[in-house]
Amino acid sequence: MTDPIARTGAPGAPTPVDCAAERGECWFTLPLRHGGERAVRVAYELVGPRTAPVIAVLGGISGDRHLLATRRYPEPGWWPRQCGPGLALDTHRFRLLGIDWLGRCGGIDQAIDTADQAQALAAVLDALGIARLHALVGASYGAMVGLAFAAGHGERLQQLVAISGGHRPDPWASAWRGLQRAILRQGIACGQSGPALSLARQVALLGYRTPHDLRTRFDLPPVRQADRFEVASEAWLRGHGEAFAARWPATAYLRLSESLDLHAVDPARIRVPVTVVGVDQDQLVPLSGLYALVEALAGPARLLTVRSAHGHDAFLKAHAAIAEALGQALAAAREVAA
Amino acid sequence: MTDPIARTGAPGAPTPVDCAAERGECWFTLPLRHGGERAVRVAYELVGPRTAPVIAVLGGISGDRHLLATRRYPEPGWWPRQCGPGLALDTHRFRLLGIDWLGRCGGIDQAIDTADQAQALAAVLDALGIARLHALVGASYGAMVGLAFAAGHGERLQQLVAISGGHRPDPWASAWRGLQRAILRQGIACGQSGPALSLARQVALLGYRTPHDLRTRFDLPPVRQADRFEVASEAWLRGHGEAFAARWPATAYLRLSESLDLHAVDPARIRVPVTVVGVDQDQLVPLSGLYALVEALAGPARLLTVRSAHGHDAFLKAHAAIAEALGQALAAAREVAA
Repeated sequence: MTDPIARTGAPGAPTPVDCAAERGECWFTLPLRHGGERAVRVAYELVGPRTAPVIAVLGGISGDRHLLATRRYPEPGWWPRQCGPGLALDTHRFRLLGIDWLGRCGGIDQAIDTADQAQALAAVLDALGIARLHALVGASYGAMVGLAFAAGHGERLQQLVAISGGHRPDPWASAWRGLQRAILRQGIACGQSGPALSLARQVALLGYRTPHDLRTRFDLPPVRQADRFEVASEAWLRGHGEAFAARWPATAYLRLSESLDLHAVDPARIRVPVTVVGVDQDQLVPLSGLYALVEALAGPARLLTVRSAHGHDAFLKAHAAIAEALGQALAAAREVAA
Repeated sequence: MTDPIARTGAPGAPTPVDCAAERGECWFTLPLRHGGERAVRVAYELVGPRTAPVIAVLGGISGDRHLLATRRYPEPGWWPRQCGPGLALDTHRFRLLGIDWLGRCGGIDQAIDTADQAQALAAVLDALGIARLHALVGASYGAMVGLAFAAGHGERLQQLVAISGGHRPDPWASAWRGLQRAILRQGIACGQSGPALSLARQVALLGYRTPHDLRTRFDLPPVRQADRFEVASEAWLRGHGEAFAARWPATAYLRLSESLDLHAVDPARIRVPVTVVGVDQDQLVPLSGLYALVEALAGPARLLTVRSAHGHDAFLKAHAAIAEALGQALAAAREVAA
């Protein structure tokens, strides 16, 4: 669900930080909820002092294990404005754990549930000898997986911070995703999966943006291209769609998109403290659904609301507001760690 | 731009009215703005007394010449709740003229402008011996064509009522339409124009509906279909997409959709009285654009605002509110006719 565009070549991207970082892969057999037993591989990355309390940090379906640029792994990470020395997720105080999603490689062509992702995270913790997470901070799909983890593996979690993700998908967002998958399947059926993935992604991207944003940027007349006219936003959208399609296998997009719609967690099963962070202009994850979540959680729960025109992308773009929400959510945790 | 679903099989559709009605076709040569001279055919329908003042009534791109069911032409029309004896567009007081859009048959594969449609309407008026319209009432694309007619043929028009259509397309709406056309072109390129038109139409349909509407109707978990899961709205959307694709040539959709984006009228050229009707929840034609239109019109102008959760489809669904707006707009005209 995250916008990968924010990741690449952003001017002013933070320089690689000097911080312990290591990577690895775990292999294990998981009983997938909709697909039976299966051998899977999960790649992880750890950043921060070896002895510090561990915080798992999970992003949208475009997010991965690489949170921030370090000297050892200097390519841009997906959350450099929140993860690093002195930032909200402070790599001097905490050890941050990122993982790649099950199915992201395109090798699993069966339904993948957020509970499967939570189980994969638990298996990674086993492999790394981490008995209990100090916290799990998840945004978008990561928040959904975090809720699934809190429901199924609560004993391994001290607290959850769930940003822009609820216990169930929003039916309106599901309608859009179902349509994206139909576009992609149609393209696959005629051997055009790349162009179709580009189109599906363009539908997703337009859904993330606010009408105001488009009105401001593309208030120009159409331009003739051979025998047709192209509107001002068309080349911009196509460029982003094609860049996305070059990086994603079609199967991965189909299955992770479907995973968002399969997500269903009973909040009554969650007893760990949860901070839910919602964005007032998020159309994909409306506040109304997050109110319902907070009311139904069985343990201590609170809702922090962020105001942002970035809507669902706020966790990647509304840096100060998200940092403040993370700071509030982790305040207790920070005292413990100090 | 209109939703054709509202037209077929609606329960409680008015029974055919007993009213003079006639149909015909005009052939003439038009200099199309982007395509040069071309022989075209325009079908029309007239309903109401032969001697009554004529009101041209133009709907969305899915609208056509058939406004209401009469004894002679009993199939459902696209605007039965506004056109008929005693209704806002009263077929006892006025003679209503409807036309089929240029390009709707799929036979014109070149850019078609709203000014071309206005010119076609003028040619139909010539053929029918109608020197001047008592009014032109246009909704959605019909409002755009109405503005083009008022700008280019103002001497043939007493007043214009433009519902949910402005002097320029909204860039956000254009972005969505550009993407629909890209989906359709991709399908045509691999010989799958029918399925692609269905998908393009589904994108359009989701854009018309409010998130609230989808949330209310499709708050259900996904259902397994072979090796994948289908969200609750998917079958509903696909059904409407396929029904639409069965009725439209791909070329017609490409060219009429493009026509919405090519639309550009200078309001300063319009000197006839204009009533603009806007809907507060219309995302495709936002009120901000209609304010700008009303301010820039050269003649008497006013804006009536309708509040409706139906958004852009309000002209087809918010019957009472639209009837009231039409009544206000035509009040002066009615006195003249009485």
